[in-house]
Amino acid sequence: MDNQTNAYDPRTFKGLTFHDARSAFADGSDTPIAYLERCLDVVAAREPVLRVFASLNEEAARAAAEASTKRWKAGKPLSAIDGMPVGIKDLLETKDMPTQMGCVAFDGNFPKNDNAAVWALRQAGAVIFGKTVTAELGGNHPGPTTNPFDPARTAGGSSSGSAAAVGGAMMPAAIGTQVGGSIIRPAAFCGNFALKPSQGAIHRGERQATSMSTHGPHAACIEDMWHVAIEIANRTGGDPGYSGLMGPMTPPRPIRPERLVVLETEGWARVDASTVSAFEQLMDGLQKAGVTLLRRKDHHWIESLETSIANTTEVCRMITAWENRWFLRNLMDRCPEGVSPRIQGSLAKSEAMTPDDYRALLLARETARICHKAMAPLADAAITLACPGPAPLWPGDIPGKPLAPEPTGDAVFNYPSSILGTPVVTMPMMAVDGMPVGLQIMGQQNEDARMTAMARWIHETVDPVIV
Amino acid sequence: MDNQTNAYDPRTFKGLTFHDARSAFADGSDTPIAYLERCLDVVAAREPVLRVFASLNEEAARAAAEASTKRWKAGKPLSAIDGMPVGIKDLLETKDMPTQMGCVAFDGNFPKNDNAAVWALRQAGAVIFGKTVTAELGGNHPGPTTNPFDPARTAGGSSSGSAAAVGGAMMPAAIGTQVGGSIIRPAAFCGNFALKPSQGAIHRGERQATSMSTHGPHAACIEDMWHVAIEIANRTGGDPGYSGLMGPMTPPRPIRPERLVVLETEGWARVDASTVSAFEQLMDGLQKAGVTLLRRKDHHWIESLETSIANTTEVCRMITAWENRWFLRNLMDRCPEGVSPRIQGSLAKSEAMTPDDYRALLLARETARICHKAMAPLADAAITLACPGPAPLWPGDIPGKPLAPEPTGDAVFNYPSSILGTPVVTMPMMAVDGMPVGLQIMGQQNEDARMTAMARWIHETVDPVIV
Repeated sequence: MDNQTNAYDPRTFKGLTFHDARSAFADGSDTPIAYLERCLDVVAAREPVLRVFASLNEEAARAAAEASTKRWKAGKPLSAIDGMPVGIKDLLETKDMPTQMGCVAFDGNFPKNDNAAVWALRQAGAVIFGKTVTAELGGNHPGPTTNPFDPARTAGGSSSGSAAAVGGAMMPAAIGTQVGGSIIRPAAFCGNFALKPSQGAIHRGERQATSMSTHGPHAACIEDMWHVAIEIANRTGGDPGYSGLMGPMTPPRPIRPERLVVLETEGWARVDASTVSAFEQLMDGLQKAGVTLLRRKDHHWIESLETSIANTTEVCRMITAWENRWFLRNLMDRCPEGVSPRIQGSLAKSEAMTPDDYRALLLARETARICHKAMAPLADAAITLACPGPAPLWPGDIPGKPLAPEPTGDAVFNYPSSILGTPVVTMPMMAVDGMPVGLQIMGQQNEDARMTAMARWIHETVDPVIV
Repeated sequence: MDNQTNAYDPRTFKGLTFHDARSAFADGSDTPIAYLERCLDVVAAREPVLRVFASLNEEAARAAAEASTKRWKAGKPLSAIDGMPVGIKDLLETKDMPTQMGCVAFDGNFPKNDNAAVWALRQAGAVIFGKTVTAELGGNHPGPTTNPFDPARTAGGSSSGSAAAVGGAMMPAAIGTQVGGSIIRPAAFCGNFALKPSQGAIHRGERQATSMSTHGPHAACIEDMWHVAIEIANRTGGDPGYSGLMGPMTPPRPIRPERLVVLETEGWARVDASTVSAFEQLMDGLQKAGVTLLRRKDHHWIESLETSIANTTEVCRMITAWENRWFLRNLMDRCPEGVSPRIQGSLAKSEAMTPDDYRALLLARETARICHKAMAPLADAAITLACPGPAPLWPGDIPGKPLAPEPTGDAVFNYPSSILGTPVVTMPMMAVDGMPVGLQIMGQQNEDARMTAMARWIHETVDPVIV
């Protein structure tokens, strides 16, 4: 590992995995503390360029890994992820590290609580391994993190640190959060697997304030992704009022989809020719493997869904701006210098809205949900790009110039599943210009395990594509 | 006003109202600052016994009332509640006063934020008039508040201070919150009108953590109750994901219900003979006024609903215990001496639960919601007692003895609307043993304005009952 640009090749790239390390823990040929030390070595080598961590408590991580080592030696691991180093996006509270949310107003914020998912991970024996950089307050004002395959490019956001840490092989898994595109976009840019769960499927703990946020794992393999998700959900359940993620304690076996809907979304118009070519080659691969593909011209239900999600960028952003309005107004009043102009712009937009504006957006969202549910008998799932192309270059804002609108990349392919509340798994199956590009599969609400199973089949069956 | 026991008579009792003071503000014969000073006089006389306030910022209240006075003098009031003193339950954050939640662990807590409803009230020109006592964290460990009609009795809880302040004529309206029975029960014990809105109808601001909590107004008359609710909702909208309370800017005109379902609920078995007699006299009055009453023997749908809500005490308490689990575990870890044995007991119960236990409770709740929705064509609304009788005596816990299970009274008549997510209005229409007892009307979700209109008709049409 070095800090130079590494052209990404999905056929050969292997991140750091955990599920295949457990047998060595069990027979004593490896230990969780040794595993952690290897992670820390990678951190030492790559952190100066990758800038993944908002906080790192090596002492607490070592103590947790030592305790896990003892449990494995005694033959009594707490779970399949006992000893797994897991990074936590710095929006979630952790007892032993600050929670600064990438926002100057929260510098030094240290609430001494554990988010429900963090609590569950500790109960399962996982090693809480640092707080990972988030774009400011989960928005799009970027932190310092760079892309593990090219430091001149963004890692995506807002779960920048979680995605880059996994893509950079510093840790096998990390927790991200998504309201618009903050899990799937950075995962797709950094070569991760990731689950954006069904709305409510994984308990958000103290972060209950918006109607479309979710917490989900980034991982270097689908097995680890699933283990992290189910070990949390089996301890915390879903969000208040939701039954929560359910499924097997081991990764769901691969399921071959019969029929998939290829969704364009409003993102299709923004995709570059290389990425279109890579995607269509993957679609060819799926068809050769016997999967029937349906597109918008093939059925009026698909056309209806495409129409209902033709404006999700605006719908998702404005719903979220409104829902963050009182939090941001209080924050601005308390600490006017503590938030970026990007956040100030979002607040100004929301303060120009009325409750009726919000109601109109909710109706648009509900209409899209109805169109998507109606499609259930037509196909097993929908498939599309997880991002409109490779991670863009990010040279930083230029003083005196207008702010770049999307410094962490375009979430246009992520808004649909966010407004639909549906589960998505992204898989690293394409390389475009030497950079990862993700393929995502989306199911109906609460089909998280089924989507994991289909993603697993696709990843095992279809050859990745390099263009 | 004195601090002695005042036998309550619903025919003659009149609390402090605001909607009828506005014409005097408009013609200059009265002013908001004078109105506030009269409130402060009552506070000075009664607070030593009533113990309504957790915090009181007279300086800020006077400044707000002076500003309102100027607006009225200029003929430019901001809303129908400009100048109205409104108390805020001490669970909700306020910029200018601490938020201590009736909990030792939060002594001195002062987050310098405004809850969304508080923000909206200030925008409407209301005078934020003190933080009112809450039972600890909105549970049932009581604060010091006493009942305005008998200081030996509880004011109910957890919105104890809001209910007693309105019943004690210290202020025309106050905000309460309910998860189980925390708005309607104390309102019914203290002779208030109150609205427990539909789930999500009034924005809860930072308090989004549980699936059944609501914020709603207590008031001495139904006009003020409605004004407060709609002035908040028109500024904040509903909770994230909800369209929120809608209706006229003036109190909904009275609507005569054609048919009402008389619900027993699991509370019926616990009602004393005097209260049964008062309730049945009211039901006679409704029938004489031409309303058809339906009871569980009259239709199998009503029987199905009664069956589905036969265990709401347990369902509501256990759902809420589970949903508060991570918050309370963090609090206990951080501050083990800072919470009462009652809260510790609730946490212990929730920590013995599994996600599947919670899922079973959600299914029971959903079943009840389906049974209630099915009943919509059968009747205009449901009607029942708002509490099982007058507020019980509360001599305080006795050291060395087991804790009293319900020191703030029994919420058995309130759990059904809490689990159903339905709107309820309580009206002060009975006196039993010289104490108020409320009558409640419950509609389908989002029928808040319609229930207000029907409550108004009932209150104007049917004679109150004294037993």
